[in-house]
Amino acid sequence: MGGDHGLSVTVPASLDCLKDNPDLVLILVGDEALLKQHLAQALVDYQGRLSIHHASQCVGMDESPSKALKNKKDSSMRVAINLVRDGVADACVSAGNTGALMATARFVLKMIPGVDRPAIVSTLPSIYGHTHALDLGANVDCTAEHLFQFAVMGNELVKAIEHIEHPKVGLLNIGEEDVKGNEQVKAAAKLLENSGLNYIGYVEGDSLTAGHVKVDLIVADGFVGNVALKSIEGAAKMMGTALKEAFAQNLFTRLAAVVAYPVLKSLKQRIDPRRYNGASFLGLRGLVIKSHGGADVLAFKTAIKLAEVEVQNDVIKKVSEQIQVILAQRESA
Amino acid sequence: MGGDHGLSVTVPASLDCLKDNPDLVLILVGDEALLKQHLAQALVDYQGRLSIHHASQCVGMDESPSKALKNKKDSSMRVAINLVRDGVADACVSAGNTGALMATARFVLKMIPGVDRPAIVSTLPSIYGHTHALDLGANVDCTAEHLFQFAVMGNELVKAIEHIEHPKVGLLNIGEEDVKGNEQVKAAAKLLENSGLNYIGYVEGDSLTAGHVKVDLIVADGFVGNVALKSIEGAAKMMGTALKEAFAQNLFTRLAAVVAYPVLKSLKQRIDPRRYNGASFLGLRGLVIKSHGGADVLAFKTAIKLAEVEVQNDVIKKVSEQIQVILAQRESA
Repeated sequence: MGGDHGLSVTVPASLDCLKDNPDLVLILVGDEALLKQHLAQALVDYQGRLSIHHASQCVGMDESPSKALKNKKDSSMRVAINLVRDGVADACVSAGNTGALMATARFVLKMIPGVDRPAIVSTLPSIYGHTHALDLGANVDCTAEHLFQFAVMGNELVKAIEHIEHPKVGLLNIGEEDVKGNEQVKAAAKLLENSGLNYIGYVEGDSLTAGHVKVDLIVADGFVGNVALKSIEGAAKMMGTALKEAFAQNLFTRLAAVVAYPVLKSLKQRIDPRRYNGASFLGLRGLVIKSHGGADVLAFKTAIKLAEVEVQNDVIKKVSEQIQVILAQRESA
Repeated sequence: MGGDHGLSVTVPASLDCLKDNPDLVLILVGDEALLKQHLAQALVDYQGRLSIHHASQCVGMDESPSKALKNKKDSSMRVAINLVRDGVADACVSAGNTGALMATARFVLKMIPGVDRPAIVSTLPSIYGHTHALDLGANVDCTAEHLFQFAVMGNELVKAIEHIEHPKVGLLNIGEEDVKGNEQVKAAAKLLENSGLNYIGYVEGDSLTAGHVKVDLIVADGFVGNVALKSIEGAAKMMGTALKEAFAQNLFTRLAAVVAYPVLKSLKQRIDPRRYNGASFLGLRGLVIKSHGGADVLAFKTAIKLAEVEVQNDVIKKVSEQIQVILAQRESA
């Protein structure tokens, strides 16, 4: 029900995914009457793979997380997350209010034992393909231990969905030298050096998209990670705007735009943010994927497909097991 | 003497600036014999406007700030900053080691009374023209009071060099709602709300380059500001690489590149990082401009021209006076 566009995006995206993947089973959670209207023939076409689960409430995009948690016990996001808790669904995908989704997910699913804080992980396009990064905004203040746990969880996710045995893990900092950074980052570096992870050291903001070496996973606190993510989004938008304006200047440049159109289109596809939509909440005992609120059909499909990949590769189970291994190592140390 | 390219960049850039601005007087500080060799005829051509001031040492790009401060008392950057302290020069421009330059500037020039920390301010291209931002890396941990002082200083700089009476000032955060952010940012917001500045509230990372409203000055702690800056640099590089690759795919795309060349060139010029080179150290009792170490002639010229503009507009004096006004207001409050 959520997101800026509601069912006009989530329903067509769902149907497209059902078409693309014959193994996919979807439960659409929300207002039954409204959903029936939107689904119509699809409920017949995808019988056995598509169903509606009624929820009478809906969390507003600007509603406070605590209010949503208290007053919206039958909201579509709450009910969807309940289905994950109860094992009825393997994952919940939502374009709704991020704060409310996180608070609800944390309340309903609970944390993996040993994990202090959930983190938001997502993917960014880079000159090497793409980079995974966390935390992108769940935690404004993080200790070294939090950063360390984010690295362990993110590392398992990257291993599982990218099929890389030893992902290169970097810690986001303002320089690569040992002396750089704040106390939390320096202490996290020490924890990572002794972690068994393929920790490559400090990386700077440009490493998210175009560093001098490929990094598979970049770890930061949620304040820094979120600012970095939004800064990259802004820069891409600025360059896109500048590109459009450059091609719109005069008759000659507009003709050049016609000739260059297929090239510009392929460029746009490569770095299309919709192809990177979908952030996972890591650290919870169940899978919740947050889609951008403004997602269109293509973008929301990407978020559903991310859920499919994470379920197929058992991400939550692997993260949970790895955290227990780390805890056991510490206790015996 | 400093930077990745030394005199091969700083000398031609200096001569270009002398040519462009007949009011400019330059003192090149460094190895006299070497400088004489590079300058040759220019010393005659620009007699009275170009001179050499000998310095026997040079700070390495990787040298630690504390070692430079202790062991390089006759380094080119130290001597140049001494000239500012002694009123012989109005500003010092350097492409050298940032940490050493900052430590030396702070040691030699001292802070403006009432300012706790110096900050690095620079300019970024945006869809609205450009945005000023600080701190871009001088301070990894900042209190609300530090952020507030950065805002006051940055505001004076923007007023002075942009000739805007009430610059729009935003505080970098992970959301625009009041509840967002860490304690320092929330407390800084309160200070700014009562400051008389044209404080517009929290802004997100995309506002540095492409927010939904124009912001003249964005304030952040040095860790966050530096990561944001580097993230933007990375994103621009990634898009530039993707653009090049898209036009290099095959014969057709290479032909399209020929047609689109003038457009791409104008785009490149608009967002050319060399046109934004030069960061000012704010909070010191003298003007020091840091050029990117990798600057080429055009980029280093931009840094020199920034120094010219700041001197012409009396930035240091205005910042210093405004800080005293704020202090007086507090004492009487």
